[in-house]
Amino acid sequence: MTATRILLDESEIPTHWYNVVADMPNPPAPPLGPDGQPVGPDKMLAIFPMALLEQEMSAERWIPIPDKVREIYGMWRPSPLCRAKRLEEVLGTPAKIYYKYEGVSPAGSHKPNTAVPQAYYNQLAGIKRISTETGAGQWGSSMAFAGQMFGLEVRVFMVKVSYDQKPFRRSMMQTWGAEVFASPTTMTQAGRDALARDPNTPGSLGIAISEAVEEAASRADTNYALGSVLNHVCMHQTIVGLEAKKQFEKIGEYPDVVIACCGGGSNFSGLAFPFLADKAAGKNVRLVAAEPTSCPTLTRGHYAYDFGDASGYTPLMLMYTLGHDFVPPGIHAGGLRYHGDSPLVSQLLKEGLIEAVAVPQLATFEAGVMFARAEGIIPAPESNHAIRACIDEALACRASGEPKTLLFNLSGHGHFDMASYDRYFAGELEDFEYPEHEIEAALPRLPKVAA
Amino acid sequence: MTATRILLDESEIPTHWYNVVADMPNPPAPPLGPDGQPVGPDKMLAIFPMALLEQEMSAERWIPIPDKVREIYGMWRPSPLCRAKRLEEVLGTPAKIYYKYEGVSPAGSHKPNTAVPQAYYNQLAGIKRISTETGAGQWGSSMAFAGQMFGLEVRVFMVKVSYDQKPFRRSMMQTWGAEVFASPTTMTQAGRDALARDPNTPGSLGIAISEAVEEAASRADTNYALGSVLNHVCMHQTIVGLEAKKQFEKIGEYPDVVIACCGGGSNFSGLAFPFLADKAAGKNVRLVAAEPTSCPTLTRGHYAYDFGDASGYTPLMLMYTLGHDFVPPGIHAGGLRYHGDSPLVSQLLKEGLIEAVAVPQLATFEAGVMFARAEGIIPAPESNHAIRACIDEALACRASGEPKTLLFNLSGHGHFDMASYDRYFAGELEDFEYPEHEIEAALPRLPKVAA
Repeated sequence: MTATRILLDESEIPTHWYNVVADMPNPPAPPLGPDGQPVGPDKMLAIFPMALLEQEMSAERWIPIPDKVREIYGMWRPSPLCRAKRLEEVLGTPAKIYYKYEGVSPAGSHKPNTAVPQAYYNQLAGIKRISTETGAGQWGSSMAFAGQMFGLEVRVFMVKVSYDQKPFRRSMMQTWGAEVFASPTTMTQAGRDALARDPNTPGSLGIAISEAVEEAASRADTNYALGSVLNHVCMHQTIVGLEAKKQFEKIGEYPDVVIACCGGGSNFSGLAFPFLADKAAGKNVRLVAAEPTSCPTLTRGHYAYDFGDASGYTPLMLMYTLGHDFVPPGIHAGGLRYHGDSPLVSQLLKEGLIEAVAVPQLATFEAGVMFARAEGIIPAPESNHAIRACIDEALACRASGEPKTLLFNLSGHGHFDMASYDRYFAGELEDFEYPEHEIEAALPRLPKVAA
Repeated sequence: MTATRILLDESEIPTHWYNVVADMPNPPAPPLGPDGQPVGPDKMLAIFPMALLEQEMSAERWIPIPDKVREIYGMWRPSPLCRAKRLEEVLGTPAKIYYKYEGVSPAGSHKPNTAVPQAYYNQLAGIKRISTETGAGQWGSSMAFAGQMFGLEVRVFMVKVSYDQKPFRRSMMQTWGAEVFASPTTMTQAGRDALARDPNTPGSLGIAISEAVEEAASRADTNYALGSVLNHVCMHQTIVGLEAKKQFEKIGEYPDVVIACCGGGSNFSGLAFPFLADKAAGKNVRLVAAEPTSCPTLTRGHYAYDFGDASGYTPLMLMYTLGHDFVPPGIHAGGLRYHGDSPLVSQLLKEGLIEAVAVPQLATFEAGVMFARAEGIIPAPESNHAIRACIDEALACRASGEPKTLLFNLSGHGHFDMASYDRYFAGELEDFEYPEHEIEAALPRLPKVAA
């Protein structure tokens, strides 16, 4: 009986995060202010602690993980690396399929990997409260958990339609002691403005971000926390890939292809960046970001400076974007409905070091159900995108006869997403692909900055 | 940094289940038929495979675990033994608190530990389909998962009120390929009778059991599976306690008190019986079953022969019972709403080898929220009973200054039970305790058999 799960001891939790900037062929393009000039950390100190801003700007290859963060990581980390032998059999592929399982965290996804250090550095800076936004609830619940670990109050602005439709993510946040408000609220100017425009608005992630940022900017004891996109967030997630590398080393294997789903980019960065270090050193490994065809940022977006939020409050970032006013259809992988992408991921794609594929919704659920029936775990809809891309690679191996080693990130379980499986089984889900002219139409609406 | 989680390798999964019958001071009282005579395995062959009936009657101390079962166990086992250091700090107790975490299984509880071997032995016997019942859905989803692992069709009769109120447990079963029907159905005589009596009946576990048994008894390709109470079910769960003992050995500790919640008894048996082997050999260890005050079978029930189901279809079993027609109030720990208890657990309690405590609902949720805020994991309402009893032991240690080592079974996560947490936070849950005369009133209604 060969092992299904490759485990590491708690003492083997990596001691440093990996900063991919150190291995990029070109330095990352800086964020720009409304004046077109690079934005320094001083502009951001009102809502982020200096320690995180330093990480955001750092070019150091290794950033030490504080002991207190490693201690909290130890509640669920190292996460298992699993061999999907039963899935291989079902597919009849000569490929070996491995997955790193991040659903073992208390919040059920990879998000606490960055929520915990963000809470830690904020507490260290004397901050008492974190304000943040959440759509489907994955990030908000991770921040609620992390805040509880470091005695911080957490205030979550949850998009109203999700607040009403996903009450159990809300109860999860409340169980961890967070305050959760249906956004827009009357507590902020941004919220009041939104309600004045439309008293019955279902809310949006853009409005919720504006509320959380406004609250953080207006209160000295309160900071803001973001769950993806930014460099320091992507870096915290590298704990995933660093562990996976140790686990492969333990069994004397190395992946030919590394796959993760990609919305804001933190999940993909987390698994893939540590392997990119090897690739930069000459190793032959493909790094594949899987996104939905209904929000095809990396595969069909424009590489341009754009705002990170819908309202244009953030600095401009050079990234693949569908336009900050892009509204993707209501696919069930809420974590992948983002108009832009991590600037680091975008630049690496632009420079040809990583690849991107887009997969349609129905095929992702087909893959997720196939995975659940073979491997037991019911995946989050976001993770189903990685599974689909991995299954497609495995089927290509069946056709070619190549016994490749495939690795994907099972970023979370689907326990709070069963309604989307219901809709899949009931035949109520659809595929969606934008006509080219709609993608093109975003171009003239992008902010005018020389890229 | 000392370890939070004590892990074992997949190769350390126990090779045998432990049969407590071998260490009981007296042989277990046999189940009786309507004629008052012991029921032999021949009567049960219509719905159970011989291998399981042999285990049900066995007095062998060690029963080998088939390789194929160990292989499936390896998808999540060995489960972690965790030190609840943050909870100890919150309580200010000198006690060391450990918990065995069974929520890591695909279905999210300890139930797959027996669903998997039950599926295996049925497949081995040439059975194609399993019929079973489920209330809240924990058992049904575990059986759906296990059936999928061995290529068995699974048909689940789900109590109608749960089918309507807990759609996500249903979707989970469907994701694993099971057929789920709201019980009562028109597919069985038992169901049709129930509907004739009341076309708008919300259903009951008693009716659902009758439907599942009827289906199994009337079809040669179909067997029945039960998730608790029976000896072989309790035995399969001993994998939990056997692993825990190995894990304690690894860190050179041994528990003074072992605690688990108790409904039908399989969860308690699983953790406690392997420690009872040591107790029988003279070791000083307390084994505590925690049940709800609203269904106080072990603490206030009658030790008598009674039916296992509400309708009186099963053999008579000698156990603590509140009467097979007992209807407990709708507490949220659905897995603990059983009128009787495992005959093995009952006999061991009667003979003074184990203890039982009853804990009120509100105090269990208070304990569960305290645990979630300290340790991250949101527990199932059933598990909250064990946590409550453990916290009470830890507080007693604070008062006495004794640095005891406490172990409890965190039998499952609460991801599908957040509605009950919502009701707790909203102040909508209540405590309930039966007046003594209501407990006494059950006595004359028990079947007349010399115990």
